[in-house]
Amino acid sequence: MVRVGIVNVTGYAGAETARLLARHPAVRLVAVTGRSAAGQPLGAVFPHLADLELAIEEELAEVDLAFSALPHHASAEVVPRLLERGQRVIDISADYRLHDLTQYERWYGAHPSPWLLGEAPYGLPELHASQIAAARLVANPGCYPTAAILALAPIIDRVEPVLIVDAKSGVSGAGRSLSLTTHYCEINENCHAYGLNGHRHLPEMEQELRALRARHRDDAEALEITFVPHLVPMTRGILATCYARLERGWSQAALVAHYREFYRAAPFVRIVDAPPQTKHTLGTNLCLIYPRLDERSGRVIVIACIDNLVKGAAGQAIQNMNLMLGLPEVTGLDGPALYP
Amino acid sequence: MVRVGIVNVTGYAGAETARLLARHPAVRLVAVTGRSAAGQPLGAVFPHLADLELAIEEELAEVDLAFSALPHHASAEVVPRLLERGQRVIDISADYRLHDLTQYERWYGAHPSPWLLGEAPYGLPELHASQIAAARLVANPGCYPTAAILALAPIIDRVEPVLIVDAKSGVSGAGRSLSLTTHYCEINENCHAYGLNGHRHLPEMEQELRALRARHRDDAEALEITFVPHLVPMTRGILATCYARLERGWSQAALVAHYREFYRAAPFVRIVDAPPQTKHTLGTNLCLIYPRLDERSGRVIVIACIDNLVKGAAGQAIQNMNLMLGLPEVTGLDGPALYP
Amino acid sequence: MVRVGIVNVTGYAGAETARLLARHPAVRLVAVTGRSAAGQPLGAVFPHLADLELAIEEELAEVDLAFSALPHHASAEVVPRLLERGQRVIDISADYRLHDLTQYERWYGAHPSPWLLGEAPYGLPELHASQIAAARLVANPGCYPTAAILALAPIIDRVEPVLIVDAKSGVSGAGRSLSLTTHYCEINENCHAYGLNGHRHLPEMEQELRALRARHRDDAEALEITFVPHLVPMTRGILATCYARLERGWSQAALVAHYREFYRAAPFVRIVDAPPQTKHTLGTNLCLIYPRLDERSGRVIVIACIDNLVKGAAGQAIQNMNLMLGLPEVTGLDGPALYP
Amino acid sequence: MVRVGIVNVTGYAGAETARLLARHPAVRLVAVTGRSAAGQPLGAVFPHLADLELAIEEELAEVDLAFSALPHHASAEVVPRLLERGQRVIDISADYRLHDLTQYERWYGAHPSPWLLGEAPYGLPELHASQIAAARLVANPGCYPTAAILALAPIIDRVEPVLIVDAKSGVSGAGRSLSLTTHYCEINENCHAYGLNGHRHLPEMEQELRALRARHRDDAEALEITFVPHLVPMTRGILATCYARLERGWSQAALVAHYREFYRAAPFVRIVDAPPQTKHTLGTNLCLIYPRLDERSGRVIVIACIDNLVKGAAGQAIQNMNLMLGLPEVTGLDGPALYP
Repeated sequence: MVRVGIVNVTGYAGAETARLLARHPAVRLVAVTGRSAAGQPLGAVFPHLADLELAIEEELAEVDLAFSALPHHASAEVVPRLLERGQRVIDISADYRLHDLTQYERWYGAHPSPWLLGEAPYGLPELHASQIAAARLVANPGCYPTAAILALAPIIDRVEPVLIVDAKSGVSGAGRSLSLTTHYCEINENCHAYGLNGHRHLPEMEQELRALRARHRDDAEALEITFVPHLVPMTRGILATCYARLERGWSQAALVAHYREFYRAAPFVRIVDAPPQTKHTLGTNLCLIYPRLDERSGRVIVIACIDNLVKGAAGQAIQNMNLMLGLPEVTGLDGPALYP
Repeated sequence: MVRVGIVNVTGYAGAETARLLARHPAVRLVAVTGRSAAGQPLGAVFPHLADLELAIEEELAEVDLAFSALPHHASAEVVPRLLERGQRVIDISADYRLHDLTQYERWYGAHPSPWLLGEAPYGLPELHASQIAAARLVANPGCYPTAAILALAPIIDRVEPVLIVDAKSGVSGAGRSLSLTTHYCEINENCHAYGLNGHRHLPEMEQELRALRARHRDDAEALEITFVPHLVPMTRGILATCYARLERGWSQAALVAHYREFYRAAPFVRIVDAPPQTKHTLGTNLCLIYPRLDERSGRVIVIACIDNLVKGAAGQAIQNMNLMLGLPEVTGLDGPALYP
Repeated sequence: MVRVGIVNVTGYAGAETARLLARHPAVRLVAVTGRSAAGQPLGAVFPHLADLELAIEEELAEVDLAFSALPHHASAEVVPRLLERGQRVIDISADYRLHDLTQYERWYGAHPSPWLLGEAPYGLPELHASQIAAARLVANPGCYPTAAILALAPIIDRVEPVLIVDAKSGVSGAGRSLSLTTHYCEINENCHAYGLNGHRHLPEMEQELRALRARHRDDAEALEITFVPHLVPMTRGILATCYARLERGWSQAALVAHYREFYRAAPFVRIVDAPPQTKHTLGTNLCLIYPRLDERSGRVIVIACIDNLVKGAAGQAIQNMNLMLGLPEVTGLDGPALYP
Repeated sequence: MVRVGIVNVTGYAGAETARLLARHPAVRLVAVTGRSAAGQPLGAVFPHLADLELAIEEELAEVDLAFSALPHHASAEVVPRLLERGQRVIDISADYRLHDLTQYERWYGAHPSPWLLGEAPYGLPELHASQIAAARLVANPGCYPTAAILALAPIIDRVEPVLIVDAKSGVSGAGRSLSLTTHYCEINENCHAYGLNGHRHLPEMEQELRALRARHRDDAEALEITFVPHLVPMTRGILATCYARLERGWSQAALVAHYREFYRAAPFVRIVDAPPQTKHTLGTNLCLIYPRLDERSGRVIVIACIDNLVKGAAGQAIQNMNLMLGLPEVTGLDGPALYP
């Protein structure tokens, strides 16, 4: 049994990783850390995890593979030490997602361990499975980029390089830290956009979609995304509505067939026949995608949805772990969504 | 005191019209109808309206001005009779919003009283105040078009004629009739798009925005909107996020100044400095607009929000009534939003 | 025009007082304070109050009457100074609600201005209108006590003195300060009891109900309430379900008639014919009461509901102000609930 | 592999049974029925169940064990036929819960198959495991009774026989059928009691609690419950707050120890140290119980919570199936709650 640990279990991504690992048949969660709660039983902070019978420690015990659910910066300080101990690491923070140090510095400031940037594959298994399988360190994608990249990847070399991603997120995407924005009374019965000065998930989307476009087009660097995230009064779920102008000659049927073929081997991606609902992904690692040709305008609308804490964070991390351990991708991640 | 009545008070738009009229200082709600509930006290169907001490009747009694909150088709059957009795009418249904009969027939089927199409001004007071003031019949706009048209009107002749309106609506927009879509357990903790085969509010938006563009441009008929509505788990509120490509030469400051000037005389439109929140319009007739230049892409993002039952229906109807009666536009429509 | 002010406008009770005062025809809100936000325009903190065009000040300017929406302790430090300046005060905090200093100290600790305890009437107008009208300082009741006392007052001398109050509250009752309990993701889709070690609203309920019982019974001190508050995922509203054992001889009809008679002169209390819904009080100063005799068990169940921020705080404060100023009780507090 | 089927999969209890069976390692769901949706793929009605690759049939195919999720009356018409075919049956409806035909007729009307009433054990495994294991037909308990009986069973012979159960339920308890009560806009931001004329779950509670009391007391028939259910704006979860007067001599510690001992062998019951939250049971078969002695009043408050669709319906049905098949009770029902 592979022994795994979670650094900083006390946020939502950390807790969700623990929840999913509790059901995983091939690994065993043996250690969790969390600074403010160190010394407490895990069940004291998270009653739903009491059966794991773990104590929250200050430093991560010896494990075979570690998940870092620290905030950015903090994660890049800890990850090198974990690697030095010979542990493989899946970093759920943003610290190793951007391959370009300049981009990182622009969005996040100085990087504590920049020498690792070139090593970590971007952990989106639908695009980079073989690099992930071989990696020592994997950079788990952001929640918005997961939805947007999966929505647009199949057609990214067939569209004008000017894209819009209008995304709607549940509140858990903002984390467990306290803020007026996530106070119940402020966001209940409310809906608003945010991050119009530039959201940190934008460079990830552009990095990955440009790389895909560059395989067939020489204008990849011109690719540009207008990304507007919105907060919606629900706990979980991201819905990304993507708009692009498709090259001529496509029919709706051909578009759907193309998406189905592109994701033929992807066990968590479903191409669906109607606008997908976030509720149908609740608690699962699924990504539902609905590509739709608006024949009148020649525009393509692609709607993708995920559970932001699963496919957008913890579930994808475990999918990456499965690849790294040579397990079937779906191990421990099966079962229907919680509905209603 | 002007006597007014509501035809079909039993839906959300009708009930909201009654709620607002209860506080109106210059008119008196004297009659309400509703087929299924005829004979019952209004307070039996809507406890919050019990103080009005009205009974729901089958036929509208003699009034000076009537609001029709019937569904489309049904409204266009009743409105001619009201007009014949010499009553002025504000039609909250969609029946007289489209000036072009062909368009109406395409989206709604045969029109019961097409001869009135040419007569009724589109009841968006920010654009058509003088026609409304003089009208016998006013076509109250749809909720989505109200938000989208107000968002885009000031720049409609300065953008490429290819627009995107990504709108998020609370559930009351779907009405009080029962459907699985509006069952609590289905839409709570859920978010999804709908109406991708064409939403009936699209032709209204195009009609009004083309007409505005036609004043300064000769390509108005080419103007085309991609409109994707979404359902969000809240009762009230619409947030419309609009995307367009602006002509060169604008700065953010100039854009804001232009919007402020455009709506200088509009008491319910506020140009705001941060992404607006639907909650800040709750229960009011306000439309909050945030125009934002994305200098990197040359794209303009305009976000507008309203309470779909007030500025998107009943409140706008009363604003129209005020104009028709020569009252100040804000009469009976003042007071802050209900927050939190 | 009477000039009024609000000390500590930055919590929900303070903001709600401002919202209601904005519509009040006989007084004018001329000053608001708030320590952390001092210097900012009120509209920067609360966009829905921007039209008031007030700045948040550090110290309250000269007014005729002040509302204190400070937390307990802090309020009792400021109130004496306001009174010394000749201003009448309505204290929305808990500081002057308990007449017995020992009780206060037990639940809240040392009292900064105990000499005022004997002076301030308990500001429940349905019970103490004449004292309130004459008072210099009024202690505005807590939200739970308002619902529970109004529910039980008419029969408090007809029941066994052992009562249960099982109350359900929306999240705004917990205030605008940040806490994990009020984080959206923690309380959305959740329901739980709290305060079982003793909730500070209990002594208020017992003080008032014992005083009422003492008018006709000599066992008033034996009266004892088991009070269990619950948090429910909604922003506003309190529903109190009260259980007591009624003396023999009552019928359902007699019970209802007795309640109607008891509240004959109370403009905000409605005796209703079906279990009341918090939504029917949304934004209003109403208290809906449903008394119900369970003939099988001889037990009476009385369900009362209010909007916790209006009748449970700001609206009741304004009702008290109206009495103090000799205005009709309903002034500025009329209009139907916001529904749906 | 045991083959199981679900009669009437199209309600929430049926769909939830299918969701849980999809993960069960020892049985295989091979057939589902549903009248209105017969002929459709299961995934067309419930996208989250598409992977089961089942079609909805009109009649149940040959299976080893069947779950009936039909409404009452309809279930009692179908169950005899299933039994005649030699299939064991777990009836999720109310049809076989009451052992006394007169009681059934009083609450539900005529019984289509009364001869089976004496045969079916009440399927609460914590009380009747051995009868369930041997049964051909098991009557799965209602959601409210499950919470209330588990809360009160350990002390039912130590309290005065006059009990109060104040219960709060999520909306899914009202089923998937359409009604104004469950329209999103009506119950969102709302809370109210219902069923005060007598709720059908009351006789179940009394039957089971009287039977338990009768083991040690001869006044069991005098036991009487006042039961007030409330609707709360959340999809899943029941919280039952139970009030009773405990015999003298108990301490809080002794009470907790007694509950722990009583449920020593019950894998799904947890005695907790703080008021439990429905969210901590989300998607699981757990029942969290918090017994609390109010030493001042001598009253005991016991709060229990469950997921109404799991321990309150489908999960309990599978727990019963596990007993009937000689499997460990927890088979297929493990894993932490979905939080947040």
